[in-house]
Amino acid sequence: MHIHCLINGEPGDTLAISDRGLHYGDGLFETLAVRDGVCEFWDRHMQRLHAGCERLCIAPPEFAQLAAEARQLTHSIERGVLKIIVTRGSGGRGYRVPDTAHPTRILLRSDWPTYPRDNAEQGVRVRLCTQRLGTNPTLAGLKHLNRLEQVLARLEWDDPTIAEGLLQDHTGHVIEGTFTNVFLVQHGKIVTPALDRCGVAGIMRAVVMELATAAGIDCTERAVTLDELVAAEELFLTNSLIGIWPIQELEHWQGRATPGYGYGPGPVTRSLQTALQCLK
Amino acid sequence: MHIHCLINGEPGDTLAISDRGLHYGDGLFETLAVRDGVCEFWDRHMQRLHAGCERLCIAPPEFAQLAAEARQLTHSIERGVLKIIVTRGSGGRGYRVPDTAHPTRILLRSDWPTYPRDNAEQGVRVRLCTQRLGTNPTLAGLKHLNRLEQVLARLEWDDPTIAEGLLQDHTGHVIEGTFTNVFLVQHGKIVTPALDRCGVAGIMRAVVMELATAAGIDCTERAVTLDELVAAEELFLTNSLIGIWPIQELEHWQGRATPGYGYGPGPVTRSLQTALQCLK
Repeated sequence: MHIHCLINGEPGDTLAISDRGLHYGDGLFETLAVRDGVCEFWDRHMQRLHAGCERLCIAPPEFAQLAAEARQLTHSIERGVLKIIVTRGSGGRGYRVPDTAHPTRILLRSDWPTYPRDNAEQGVRVRLCTQRLGTNPTLAGLKHLNRLEQVLARLEWDDPTIAEGLLQDHTGHVIEGTFTNVFLVQHGKIVTPALDRCGVAGIMRAVVMELATAAGIDCTERAVTLDELVAAEELFLTNSLIGIWPIQELEHWQGRATPGYGYGPGPVTRSLQTALQCLK
Repeated sequence: MHIHCLINGEPGDTLAISDRGLHYGDGLFETLAVRDGVCEFWDRHMQRLHAGCERLCIAPPEFAQLAAEARQLTHSIERGVLKIIVTRGSGGRGYRVPDTAHPTRILLRSDWPTYPRDNAEQGVRVRLCTQRLGTNPTLAGLKHLNRLEQVLARLEWDDPTIAEGLLQDHTGHVIEGTFTNVFLVQHGKIVTPALDRCGVAGIMRAVVMELATAAGIDCTERAVTLDELVAAEELFLTNSLIGIWPIQELEHWQGRATPGYGYGPGPVTRSLQTALQCLK
């Protein structure tokens, strides 16, 4: 089995040059962890993809078909990543959407990334990015294909010991990392930035919020300031591939030099990591 | 001669599925008017493309090569459109840019769009969009591939008699149309919105500003309010394909019904149209 990509159900590795995914980033994507042939949190990813299609007025894919195609690519895989892209398809003059758009669905399997084991155990070093996230309530929360802000943010550092960069919006509130969501522990309760104006509403973010609530840990979504972040008892990052990474240090933080603020994994982060392990 | 697309110099109509243009909108584009085998304002388009590549840290294409490829597609064309897309190319894990990126260059020729002749003569009807433009100073001015805001704005209306929709930023200032820049005439002087926080710095916008200055018409870039727009003596739109379209009516304007505000082509707009004709 050497097929690693299906485009509208057919093996291939190229896209029509007229696809609006290329021209305008007119589409959405999902990144799923694959373990022992199973795409983790499949239903949640499909729900988000469906909601995203509705927001962008893209006809959602046939989910039974998508599931069959995902199975074809991943059923024999021990560990891997499945990326699903849905674009509005080809055509239309300029930005105007064609009357009969045929969305393109792309399933792309890749190897499991080799993150250092210490990231989950001891935590990671994180920096604050200069790049900010623009406000856009109609796109906020969606995992859409317009991701230049993340690309520019990731261009800001090259130090391999820094695992992630955090982004603020233009009012200075902390929103998320370039590829993760962020959580704070304050007085034993957890807080994560509200994503009603920008940011991506991660699947693992939702899972962790539910795990916290189930464990009796109070969990709030609201605007978060930089000062709150620095003053937090614990900090951690989430996404579908990494699960939960504690933040150990905030580096290059508003000009303050190494060794930065020290955190290290605290009890709330540890209990959520354990709860997540049990869920899988 | 049936070739209408060159990808890295080769005829073709597909793109590698791994291209970051698809995954992140990680690239730029230019849309050029072709007349009698000549790509209009070629040097200006190349300057903007070069500046955009620098801003996004993409290695700029070899411009002599790009010119040769453009000539190959357009030299025998009486009237047409050439779209040039430059992406960062394939690869890199996640948002991180690969150490040795090989940008992709795409040249795509298409037919000249059939705009009603009246658009330039009598002017067009324009609406105000609900969709707003997010603030992003690092991307402002660039013609990059993250264009979901424009797609969503264009989805707001289906009335073929409305030629364009205007967009505000989140502070309520008027920035541009979905595919045009906008100009106001106030006390015989022209004003166009500053594009330091969002918007695309159009080639025709720059040409018109220079034509105005050369004609002794004072021309300013600054923040523009909705009230100023409504109160303007004349309004017009610009882009590389349409040249200058007078705005005749503002429709669906903040809930005010048809027939809307009437403008019609005024003397300043007419003189700039004439100056542009002479330039070509």
